[in-house]
Amino acid sequence: MQQHRTESPAETGAETHDTWLEREALAEAMIPLIGHLYRNNNVVTSIHGRSLINKSTMNILKAHRFARRITTEELRLEDTAPILAILADLDLGAAAIDVGRLRLAYDRVSTAGTGQSLEEFLRTELADIVGQGGADERTSTDVVLYGFGRIGRLVARLLIEKAGGGHGLRLRAVVVRRGSANDLTKRASLLRRDSVHGSFDGTIQVDEDTNTITANGTRIQVIYSDDPASIDYTAYGITDALVVDNTGRWRDEAGLSQHLKSTGVAKVLLTAPGKGALKNIVHGINHATIEDSDRIITAASCTTNAITPVLKAINDRYGVVHGHVETVHSFTNDQNLIDNFHRGDRRGRSAALNMVLTETGAATAVAKALPELAGKLTGSSIRVPTPDVSIAILNLTLEHATTKEEVNTYLREMSLHSGMRKQVDYIDSPEVVSTDFVGSRRAGIVDGLATIAEDTYLVLYIWYDNEFGYSCQVVRVMEEMAAVHPPTYPAADADAAVAATV
Amino acid sequence: MQQHRTESPAETGAETHDTWLEREALAEAMIPLIGHLYRNNNVVTSIHGRSLINKSTMNILKAHRFARRITTEELRLEDTAPILAILADLDLGAAAIDVGRLRLAYDRVSTAGTGQSLEEFLRTELADIVGQGGADERTSTDVVLYGFGRIGRLVARLLIEKAGGGHGLRLRAVVVRRGSANDLTKRASLLRRDSVHGSFDGTIQVDEDTNTITANGTRIQVIYSDDPASIDYTAYGITDALVVDNTGRWRDEAGLSQHLKSTGVAKVLLTAPGKGALKNIVHGINHATIEDSDRIITAASCTTNAITPVLKAINDRYGVVHGHVETVHSFTNDQNLIDNFHRGDRRGRSAALNMVLTETGAATAVAKALPELAGKLTGSSIRVPTPDVSIAILNLTLEHATTKEEVNTYLREMSLHSGMRKQVDYIDSPEVVSTDFVGSRRAGIVDGLATIAEDTYLVLYIWYDNEFGYSCQVVRVMEEMAAVHPPTYPAADADAAVAATV
Amino acid sequence: MQQHRTESPAETGAETHDTWLEREALAEAMIPLIGHLYRNNNVVTSIHGRSLINKSTMNILKAHRFARRITTEELRLEDTAPILAILADLDLGAAAIDVGRLRLAYDRVSTAGTGQSLEEFLRTELADIVGQGGADERTSTDVVLYGFGRIGRLVARLLIEKAGGGHGLRLRAVVVRRGSANDLTKRASLLRRDSVHGSFDGTIQVDEDTNTITANGTRIQVIYSDDPASIDYTAYGITDALVVDNTGRWRDEAGLSQHLKSTGVAKVLLTAPGKGALKNIVHGINHATIEDSDRIITAASCTTNAITPVLKAINDRYGVVHGHVETVHSFTNDQNLIDNFHRGDRRGRSAALNMVLTETGAATAVAKALPELAGKLTGSSIRVPTPDVSIAILNLTLEHATTKEEVNTYLREMSLHSGMRKQVDYIDSPEVVSTDFVGSRRAGIVDGLATIAEDTYLVLYIWYDNEFGYSCQVVRVMEEMAAVHPPTYPAADADAAVAATV
Amino acid sequence: MQQHRTESPAETGAETHDTWLEREALAEAMIPLIGHLYRNNNVVTSIHGRSLINKSTMNILKAHRFARRITTEELRLEDTAPILAILADLDLGAAAIDVGRLRLAYDRVSTAGTGQSLEEFLRTELADIVGQGGADERTSTDVVLYGFGRIGRLVARLLIEKAGGGHGLRLRAVVVRRGSANDLTKRASLLRRDSVHGSFDGTIQVDEDTNTITANGTRIQVIYSDDPASIDYTAYGITDALVVDNTGRWRDEAGLSQHLKSTGVAKVLLTAPGKGALKNIVHGINHATIEDSDRIITAASCTTNAITPVLKAINDRYGVVHGHVETVHSFTNDQNLIDNFHRGDRRGRSAALNMVLTETGAATAVAKALPELAGKLTGSSIRVPTPDVSIAILNLTLEHATTKEEVNTYLREMSLHSGMRKQVDYIDSPEVVSTDFVGSRRAGIVDGLATIAEDTYLVLYIWYDNEFGYSCQVVRVMEEMAAVHPPTYPAADADAAVAATV
Repeated sequence: MQQHRTESPAETGAETHDTWLEREALAEAMIPLIGHLYRNNNVVTSIHGRSLINKSTMNILKAHRFARRITTEELRLEDTAPILAILADLDLGAAAIDVGRLRLAYDRVSTAGTGQSLEEFLRTELADIVGQGGADERTSTDVVLYGFGRIGRLVARLLIEKAGGGHGLRLRAVVVRRGSANDLTKRASLLRRDSVHGSFDGTIQVDEDTNTITANGTRIQVIYSDDPASIDYTAYGITDALVVDNTGRWRDEAGLSQHLKSTGVAKVLLTAPGKGALKNIVHGINHATIEDSDRIITAASCTTNAITPVLKAINDRYGVVHGHVETVHSFTNDQNLIDNFHRGDRRGRSAALNMVLTETGAATAVAKALPELAGKLTGSSIRVPTPDVSIAILNLTLEHATTKEEVNTYLREMSLHSGMRKQVDYIDSPEVVSTDFVGSRRAGIVDGLATIAEDTYLVLYIWYDNEFGYSCQVVRVMEEMAAVHPPTYPAADADAAVAATV
Repeated sequence: MQQHRTESPAETGAETHDTWLEREALAEAMIPLIGHLYRNNNVVTSIHGRSLINKSTMNILKAHRFARRITTEELRLEDTAPILAILADLDLGAAAIDVGRLRLAYDRVSTAGTGQSLEEFLRTELADIVGQGGADERTSTDVVLYGFGRIGRLVARLLIEKAGGGHGLRLRAVVVRRGSANDLTKRASLLRRDSVHGSFDGTIQVDEDTNTITANGTRIQVIYSDDPASIDYTAYGITDALVVDNTGRWRDEAGLSQHLKSTGVAKVLLTAPGKGALKNIVHGINHATIEDSDRIITAASCTTNAITPVLKAINDRYGVVHGHVETVHSFTNDQNLIDNFHRGDRRGRSAALNMVLTETGAATAVAKALPELAGKLTGSSIRVPTPDVSIAILNLTLEHATTKEEVNTYLREMSLHSGMRKQVDYIDSPEVVSTDFVGSRRAGIVDGLATIAEDTYLVLYIWYDNEFGYSCQVVRVMEEMAAVHPPTYPAADADAAVAATV
Repeated sequence: MQQHRTESPAETGAETHDTWLEREALAEAMIPLIGHLYRNNNVVTSIHGRSLINKSTMNILKAHRFARRITTEELRLEDTAPILAILADLDLGAAAIDVGRLRLAYDRVSTAGTGQSLEEFLRTELADIVGQGGADERTSTDVVLYGFGRIGRLVARLLIEKAGGGHGLRLRAVVVRRGSANDLTKRASLLRRDSVHGSFDGTIQVDEDTNTITANGTRIQVIYSDDPASIDYTAYGITDALVVDNTGRWRDEAGLSQHLKSTGVAKVLLTAPGKGALKNIVHGINHATIEDSDRIITAASCTTNAITPVLKAINDRYGVVHGHVETVHSFTNDQNLIDNFHRGDRRGRSAALNMVLTETGAATAVAKALPELAGKLTGSSIRVPTPDVSIAILNLTLEHATTKEEVNTYLREMSLHSGMRKQVDYIDSPEVVSTDFVGSRRAGIVDGLATIAEDTYLVLYIWYDNEFGYSCQVVRVMEEMAAVHPPTYPAADADAAVAATV
Repeated sequence: MQQHRTESPAETGAETHDTWLEREALAEAMIPLIGHLYRNNNVVTSIHGRSLINKSTMNILKAHRFARRITTEELRLEDTAPILAILADLDLGAAAIDVGRLRLAYDRVSTAGTGQSLEEFLRTELADIVGQGGADERTSTDVVLYGFGRIGRLVARLLIEKAGGGHGLRLRAVVVRRGSANDLTKRASLLRRDSVHGSFDGTIQVDEDTNTITANGTRIQVIYSDDPASIDYTAYGITDALVVDNTGRWRDEAGLSQHLKSTGVAKVLLTAPGKGALKNIVHGINHATIEDSDRIITAASCTTNAITPVLKAINDRYGVVHGHVETVHSFTNDQNLIDNFHRGDRRGRSAALNMVLTETGAATAVAKALPELAGKLTGSSIRVPTPDVSIAILNLTLEHATTKEEVNTYLREMSLHSGMRKQVDYIDSPEVVSTDFVGSRRAGIVDGLATIAEDTYLVLYIWYDNEFGYSCQVVRVMEEMAAVHPPTYPAADADAAVAATV
């Protein structure tokens, strides 16, 4: 994941090369520990919400540096390394553990002069799971991706990346229409290489006999079908599956409930805005409304996911009287390369050559996740010739006046410490442009330097990777539907479970 | 010029092929008459503001059809052809004559039953110039283009197109820094071919001996210099010149007044926003404030030209309380192809690959032409990977509520009948995209279908050819500075002079 | 049509503005005469192969200037104007008359001192058709466009442009699958505006009641069907139609002969390479092999059309031992905007972001039109992110050595004086790039400055508008199939009929 | 680094998830050992030429899988892990050790039944450096990057990545012209983010007081200067520096020797083709001709680097009679965004919109590194609208005939086992396109599926990352000039030193 942070010219006291080498050695030593805890104990470790699973040495260093944004000073690897070493010896049960926050907690304890050693502190803090290795009773959830387009493939990449210790979401199958004789090889190739997101991080194997693709050890059954209602998933050992519909062909309950008629399906998630009474979930906003009895859920659109958290933050503090959301949006495969017939207005015109005005329900759909904004927002979109990453411009009229500095400080805080910190990022670099956000895992990133505030008029600029950031939100909803979250530590931190995911 | 009009499915009663052939013959017959009046009498003919000079058969047919937008029915060529035939015989003095409006006036006279013949009517209406052929006392104004980049070359194309009967603006010279041994050929080539605007309509000759380029008979001296203050233009027979500075190197009076130190210069026009107390002129808004004593004028930016007329229209009727202008803007040569150093924020990043947020003074500069909006507007811009045509999104809070239908009807009227009809166009086609506006001569075109109006909140979408539409506005300001406008007929129509230009 | 010519720095003696105005007046005066001859006498006039029909003043001036390439000096308008004036009075029967060549012929007669006046000369030369006005017995051919994509719409534009005096090819209907409720309006809109080729030159009307589009007076029936074999075209008054299949769905006789089962169809032309024994026609090469009994013909591919004429020219003179054709090709709608499934290798990957290697049969298909090259050519293609215009690089090993100068001179001659002069153009400007060739009507344009010749190794660079240039070739084949060519003058010039078309 | 390999549908027997987890654990455990050996012993470990330094778990797994291409079966991590463990305990002196090849050697020993244990084998094989830890007498070489454009910044990224155990190439300074007040921050930002190559892998700090940028612990002095001849590098502690000139402003000895006049400079490398008698080095071909006395070296062009190794391979085996090299090349910052003046032919025309034919000396420059091809090659280039990665098409006439299968097998072998295996890669995937090669470290990659061979006519397609692949070649030349290569093991493998770099 890319780091987006302020380029402060005041960052003096740069470390020496020797210091760097020492830190590098410490980070490298952590990697086997992190992997061990993940694979053997189902323990997901993180640092202030940034997962450490399968991360490189450099990512681990960056996660420690990122802590400066939380605590004003960098987290020292000398302080986290011993925690990981101890954890690896405690035979822990499944959990999500934020090592950075644990360290903060221990520092408070130390400062208080209790004399408690680090190991004593950890044994106390994690008492419920110490010695519980192997006792995880959670079951994994089978996942079927129905449709394997751009969102489908990115969700697959995320699920494979997170396929760890044998529970959680298990990607089991992909359902597509057979497109050619060598369809299987072609599907694997599309998973392996992507013109926007780069090559798959790992190895992919194709087995024509069993019609499976194995990616980093995850075996994915490719099922050819054109009828969502007549597949016997149990024939492939798949049961109680969560079917993720990426086709967009059906948007309402009638259409999507076809999946439930197939054998082996428990629930359905649509990766597009739903129609009718279906719950539209924006993770971070209304995911708590998901009930175990919900059989069909929709994940709203990429734009709705990008803007709703920021709108909620602003509405909570300043009150939104009215707003207009304009998105400047990358083209999508729904458009044409060069002018040709298309059912939709203007969408038939060349996406590679034009700015294309398009209607969007993304702004009004905000109210489905955030009812207090019902009737207050209008929206429109302009498609432009970039392949990924979009920007939403929120033109808001507020109840209470604010200033650029105030609102930026507030949104920066929200991005670090709120329950929406997985959704909202904040950046104030004077040089960032759209491609810098390819691969961003947040739903939306506030460009602080662009903020305009005059009295009760506020204009905010929200970047988002409309493909990858959205796919991360989808996976978060899937985890919610599958109820895969383990206990989180430090226990007091209610957001840790969320924070440690994706 | 492209026609932008509603695609009404209700347009029944399509003409037959025979009717078409008859109309074609009539239009063809007009061409020599239009040319004769232009070249021999300095008479610029037009139809409802659309110039007929150097237009093709098809353009003449389209101009007659366009009349439907004015009068609800198409203007018949059978009605205008006789007018042109009579005019050609009246030995007229210089004038701008709107044949479409003359016909309307005559129809009123006929309906009134005066029994006046068409020729009698025309002799009466044009009494002041009948028999005055050759009596034109206006002098032409020498024009020097200082800088020959994208705006410079488009202004050159416009001036060559309009070089008619020996008065008005005469393009005499271009000043550039010598860029290579074969500089002259290269300059000619850039004038001849353009990747966005197509090939030059005519013939171009290069004379290395005299260092001149002759385009459609207009001889242009190419002068190599790097110092605006030390050129003796009179050495090339150029006197009292209007120097159009397209370099953007100097924006204030001190810098631009250097041109006045060169021999043979009378006035200076900057094709960019000026600084300090310099008049920023948006034609159609404040061109009447140009005084003969003004030596340095600036033509504001393309965006300011695109939005100011629409903002004036809205403010006049609904009152603008506050507004934010977001432009989605084509890249410009000021940016980089691929990431590299650039003085400006973000502009160093690849323009071909990114959405690039940039600051713009275009919104606040509106107040220089329209003081009543001072302090009411904010603005920002996003550069995207298209080479030409931009769109401005006006997010306005109004004093008085309106509806989409009402405001669209109003703006459509403004585009047809107001003093800003050369600046504002209106279109409500469901299929138009940015490339359709390449070559548009209006400063801005309202996309009516995109308009959003809710109570006192209004969002308007204004397309503009940021290169060509702006160049047309620049030429209109030049004509104002040179005071080249002849008497206009029908006399009552104060806008005809403007209307017939460009 | 764009003019592509050498930018010679030696072009001194540029005309004065007054001379230009005089020439302009002469050209304007020609327009009604040209139109009259076309509409009333079915006489197509041209100047050295460049049609004068529906051309602007500027195009007429350019056609006269172009004559320099033929005769080393410009053709004076003073010399052609009287010819047109006389022709208009001779009550001519249908013919294709090259005014430029007639003038050359008369000059030879004058020089010979016969004392024959121009009118006497013309009456003698055109004796067969003088006084034959209205005696044209040729019938027009109904044309149906089956499929209305990029080639279909450009062919439509060409047919509408050429719809003149009531015979020849008559565009009567378009067959498409209904794509949406407002399908008709959308089809009209796609004909009206194009992101690459610009707006339609004329007016377009839509009649929902009759389901017709009327473009410049040509009424086009839109027929909705998904079955080529079951349409009763006679219900629309269409008989003995030439159906142009632009869908590419069927490539062989079995598939294409379905069209012949519909009522009212006489012949079929496929605008793509055909399979099996179907004749692949490259106009200029093997169009003479079309027999009246041929019911299904194919027009080969754009690339085959671009390269075959040049290959024939080279093979005729130098002998081709072996060759490889590499095309750098604009993307087409057959590719994807962003990575997604596609049956073909690599074509699923984003066309907007990549160079895409693709196989092509265009080189081997040359042998279908030019059997002497059978087995001598290989070919491949690289698709790149431009929307139109491609370049073919011919890497040839010759029997006889040549030099760059020699081969360029030869190809330039071929482009001016051979039977392939409608197919081959030649340019040697140092500044031309791909967009300059948008709208070029030749099948291919040799870029002389790029030619590389070393002994028997030759590399040639051939630009082509893969959409428009190809569509022009298609129309030429259609005319051949419909046998619409009238007698041509000067009679000795066997190529005039071809030359005057398109 | 991306893996480019065949997508064989026959790859059955995909591993299970459990196997994957075991392998992952093994790979994770290697990371600290690899880092330790690198930092503490200056030992660069690799697997069949693929460096393990600073690589992720996934890269280590991929390197083992890659071994299949060498030995037909995958290298087991169980076999290499113990080698690393033993190496870490031997207190080794500086070396480049290929663990994959060592394993092969030991397997041969084992098979021979010597009874030698792995540790005994390693102690014998590495006898010269066992116990020599800290005894490295090599000195590091200070590097100055003069110019910090696209190549300069990528070379910097590579040097920072390779800044390990305190010797080798040390990036010390960057020399640029000050571009703005906040120049330092902007330079750091350009190093941090790149629209094509993504974000910098690590952390970057800026110190305005000392005018330094510190990247992953490497402190880089930014020096502002416009005169290469008057800088006192010793003032910054830089001595005997290798100055890498990335500006391209000077190409000959006279110009480049200016750098030698500055204090503290020992040698100069130009990252562009040199003129006159300067050695043009293509690493893998003629790097052995570099002598210690050479003060100025040039690294040829990206295209010359891409094609020379393949041409050498073909010439060695089949004999090249004649060839033409056509490159389809990504645009570079030397071109314009939209049409404007440029000294070079055609380069002024919009790079974002056009195919642009350009002359190139890359083909003839091959002879500077490979004299046997002198006079046999011609070349040309077409620039297209992609930002990075190009393809060279080699059209060759051979002395000896070959077939597609044969020549592909041969080139595949060259890519795996020859002395040019760092320069040549081979791929035969049916789906690869240009963006897949972004980040490729080889000079050129043969696209085997595209190969065309007919008798003695051969067409080869060579992809190359014209920015990054070339930068890797530049760094290899720098290492040669600095003579930084340590002893390599297995000792018999002469290529190991090369192989372990970059």
